[in-house]
Amino acid sequence: MALIVQKYGGTSVASVERIKHVAERVAKFKMLGHQVVVVLSAMSGETNRLIALAKEVQSEPDPRELDALISTGEQVTVALMAMALKDLGLKARSYTGAQVRILTDNAHTKARIVSIEEQNMRQDLESGRVVVVAGFQGVDEQGNITTLGRGGSDTTGVALAAALNADECQIYTDVDGVYTTDPRIVPNARRLDTITFEEMLEMASLGSKVLQIRAVEFAGKYKVKLRVLSSFQDEGEGTLITFEEEPNTMEQAIISGIAFNRDEAKITILGVPDTPGVAYQILGPVAEANIDVDMIIQNTGADNTTDFTFTVNRNEYPRTMQLLTSLQAKLGAKEIKGDKHIAKLSIVGVGMRSHVGIASTMFKTLAQENINIQMISTSEIKISVVIDEKYLELAVRILHDVFELEKPR
Amino acid sequence: MALIVQKYGGTSVASVERIKHVAERVAKFKMLGHQVVVVLSAMSGETNRLIALAKEVQSEPDPRELDALISTGEQVTVALMAMALKDLGLKARSYTGAQVRILTDNAHTKARIVSIEEQNMRQDLESGRVVVVAGFQGVDEQGNITTLGRGGSDTTGVALAAALNADECQIYTDVDGVYTTDPRIVPNARRLDTITFEEMLEMASLGSKVLQIRAVEFAGKYKVKLRVLSSFQDEGEGTLITFEEEPNTMEQAIISGIAFNRDEAKITILGVPDTPGVAYQILGPVAEANIDVDMIIQNTGADNTTDFTFTVNRNEYPRTMQLLTSLQAKLGAKEIKGDKHIAKLSIVGVGMRSHVGIASTMFKTLAQENINIQMISTSEIKISVVIDEKYLELAVRILHDVFELEKPR
Repeated sequence: MALIVQKYGGTSVASVERIKHVAERVAKFKMLGHQVVVVLSAMSGETNRLIALAKEVQSEPDPRELDALISTGEQVTVALMAMALKDLGLKARSYTGAQVRILTDNAHTKARIVSIEEQNMRQDLESGRVVVVAGFQGVDEQGNITTLGRGGSDTTGVALAAALNADECQIYTDVDGVYTTDPRIVPNARRLDTITFEEMLEMASLGSKVLQIRAVEFAGKYKVKLRVLSSFQDEGEGTLITFEEEPNTMEQAIISGIAFNRDEAKITILGVPDTPGVAYQILGPVAEANIDVDMIIQNTGADNTTDFTFTVNRNEYPRTMQLLTSLQAKLGAKEIKGDKHIAKLSIVGVGMRSHVGIASTMFKTLAQENINIQMISTSEIKISVVIDEKYLELAVRILHDVFELEKPR
Repeated sequence: MALIVQKYGGTSVASVERIKHVAERVAKFKMLGHQVVVVLSAMSGETNRLIALAKEVQSEPDPRELDALISTGEQVTVALMAMALKDLGLKARSYTGAQVRILTDNAHTKARIVSIEEQNMRQDLESGRVVVVAGFQGVDEQGNITTLGRGGSDTTGVALAAALNADECQIYTDVDGVYTTDPRIVPNARRLDTITFEEMLEMASLGSKVLQIRAVEFAGKYKVKLRVLSSFQDEGEGTLITFEEEPNTMEQAIISGIAFNRDEAKITILGVPDTPGVAYQILGPVAEANIDVDMIIQNTGADNTTDFTFTVNRNEYPRTMQLLTSLQAKLGAKEIKGDKHIAKLSIVGVGMRSHVGIASTMFKTLAQENINIQMISTSEIKISVVIDEKYLELAVRILHDVFELEKPR
């Protein structure tokens, strides 16, 4: 008998039929003798509907009230799920974040979990109940409803698994696991049976949006066994996220996958005087404007000047360009250039640590296809390049092929 | 400066536009220097939508889960209202029933309020905030979400007014007050400036569905000054519900209004042996089947038998007939008859206490129109008759005319 936390996303509970389908899956686990905690998102589309409603009322909705509003989405699904489970003859009880008492800080719309009271859930599980918890939400010290931000239900699932010391946290999504890359681009992309925690972090942050990055970090911190599965398929083991520090390199693939995203834009500041503090002079105002920066590169140019390039989310591109243009004179920059039509592509794999030549293979492959590399950034387990957006699919396919990712490890 | 509790029903918050309209009304009261607590229902149609969803999942939804589900309706409106108020530059804060801590018993779907913690609301009011509270809902000792049953938002409004010792509780609806009768039937029906608490109780229970009866009882118990107003009109004083024990009979009208309903059905058990306990033998099983009985009449018949007639809600008619038919042999009844096509009509007025002849005027008037009276029941301040449904409108018009209810007091 195991204690299993199962998290289902919005598409898995998008209709009464799908809710009943999930209830049947939970019932199977119960019949095998497991204790089950179910964490749910809002029905797909519901959170967006509520946010749109809020914006009709107030163009920039008050964060506290927005949290009170959108938290109703999950409250609806957990109540309906508890009913569906009871309809199958199971014992079940729904909990909002406040009812569990998932205590968070008071950073509305992006709160962080501080602690979880698990006694009531534990009692329910021991008395044979399925515990159904609203994901994405909590409550602060003052009793205000908070939400964890987009994708926060994954975090709730992992946090509950940690608090309850669960045997496994299963994240059910609309894909059946983590793939070597997006199968829509590379048809013979392969589902990975396992992926390391670090690889998953890189894959998640790079746009393979299977799992929320905070959830993966949380799982790593508390050593929660995490598995990604499809809620639309009844078979399949999904992908297990492992935490081995030293993988068996005999079996370990060098590269696990290729991640990419088209959500970024590039901004280059040319000919800034190369004095100490220049990076701060440029990025300080950007951070103050609450604009997240991803890749950053600085190169020495001619005449004691330096060129500075960074990427931001494409949505923030106009605002960032405007901001830097207003700073141009102060920075003493020669020119400020921007490009929205870029894509970031990364090869990820813990195996890279013990293999040389991965980067050069990657660069050579791209060069052979005449794909110009605009930026490069590396970590121990990944190499990222920024290229022209129009070459992205070609680059992914050719690299997937060159590194033979379609072949089982 | 006064402390005013304003309750708005579902049609008053049915859309973003209507929510903004209510916010503007609240702002006017704030600008006059009043402290305002706003109590809201769910957007009209939302509670029904959620109940329908629940029934799709579980034919008889679990009461605890149903409460968790439908309480989201008010949570949505209070959050949106707080945003709308903030958008007007006011300070505001929303509360769910659990956040106020409106403590109830644990009778899910029909809970009763036990106590209300008013410190936080009081603090908010003193710091200039508008307090926006979800009607209809509370929380039990164990933290389970409860609801007060249909129309429970009125009760929440009155209960908050009592707890905060408010100067007035204003109930905003889609009518601009309490009328002498339904203006759709009698076009010159008159809005009453005041109505006594007892009259209101009779009017409410008799189908003048302006206010929930529990709310009126609550207001009476705690001497809350209650006013019914229209949320669709910007002018108008509405109808004030008064609690004077001894009205000024010089000014007091004899009859305040004519109430009626078509929701009942009549069942007659003929020729039951007239022995002690016969009423219990008949009504005991009816009560056990959870069927509410309204009027009851017992008449001695011939041959030591008795005839027994009562009315039930029309929805319960088939079930009640079935139940009694199954009991016929055991009761030794000669015949069981039923009639769905009846209507109940009542004239209501505290002035009746000090006037004789009201009943006879009523009966004479109906007789002149050849309207047969099937049942009669009276209290100190009302006379109710059951008549054939098809004569209802005629009877209401003629009695409204005879008692000159269109004339101001």
